[in-house]
Amino acid sequence: MNKLKVTVLRLGHRFERDKRISTHIALVGRAFGAQELVLDSRDSRVKEGIDEVNENWGGGFRVRFIENWKSFVGGFDGTKIHLTMYGININDVKFPLGRENVLVIVGGKKVPPQIYGMVDYNIAVGNQPHSEVAALAVFLDRFFEGKELDREFEGKQRVIPQRRGKKVVRY
Amino acid sequence: MNKLKVTVLRLGHRFERDKRISTHIALVGRAFGAQELVLDSRDSRVKEGIDEVNENWGGGFRVRFIENWKSFVGGFDGTKIHLTMYGININDVKFPLGRENVLVIVGGKKVPPQIYGMVDYNIAVGNQPHSEVAALAVFLDRFFEGKELDREFEGKQRVIPQRRGKKVVRY
Repeated sequence: MNKLKVTVLRLGHRFERDKRISTHIALVGRAFGAQELVLDSRDSRVKEGIDEVNENWGGGFRVRFIENWKSFVGGFDGTKIHLTMYGININDVKFPLGRENVLVIVGGKKVPPQIYGMVDYNIAVGNQPHSEVAALAVFLDRFFEGKELDREFEGKQRVIPQRRGKKVVRY
Repeated sequence: MNKLKVTVLRLGHRFERDKRISTHIALVGRAFGAQELVLDSRDSRVKEGIDEVNENWGGGFRVRFIENWKSFVGGFDGTKIHLTMYGININDVKFPLGRENVLVIVGGKKVPPQIYGMVDYNIAVGNQPHSEVAALAVFLDRFFEGKELDREFEGKQRVIPQRRGKKVVRY
């Protein structure tokens, strides 16, 4: 898992509507083993939210902004995966898919049609409509074979898993 | 999978803020093999959204509202699972967990502390903060061993999975 670098690109972020959904995407990226989230529009609220989580819970997950998704995707050096309900069902996909740099693209309801032809794989986390947050999480969970959830983060605080109740240790 | 009935309870839905997140939760429940979503406050927008998805894409996923989560959870006849980042890491949980009626509880940032003691399992989809939408999806994907994503829905339209582009058949 260490050699792999996973970048998540979230397309179509709308400043007025998508702060929470994009923040969930960023948090999922961080918790499920990706290294960074790239947004195609500037929304520093998403970045600030993640920076705060990093500070408290550890890790160096990064949020950054680009202006032109087309040149970003076109120029990406690695395996490009687009998550879409129209793609091949993830149950029919043979893992592992990529070895070093991996780009995982999630969109909203409408993505630019060109994207389908610009990637190596169009993968459906099921062929039913649901959620880009869920699609990203399940994809990364399958991609890393669950090991991403055992990863340790070094932050100011840490959960000690409990059968009942909450236990958080602060350093 | 057919004998199992999975109900999702979403606690702490706030009318002003949570329509989209709760709608994502409902869509994930539907796409990942649950039968219904129960909300602890009335928000017919969530129900309307899902009814429309059912009509187009099939299935009988139901959204309903309750007034008292405590009596609902207390009276639930089956296996009760609370998804929380403070629980036992899902990687350390032995599946299968429940055989017939299963209740999966997801909350937001703050859940009533009593809930931890009212359930059979407090399970963490990783012990890092992320998203109740993601937690539900990954939990159900593990619970159903991925088979939920092969399920067929009979609706007015259906995706024919493609390597490139979109193909939807309408009936």
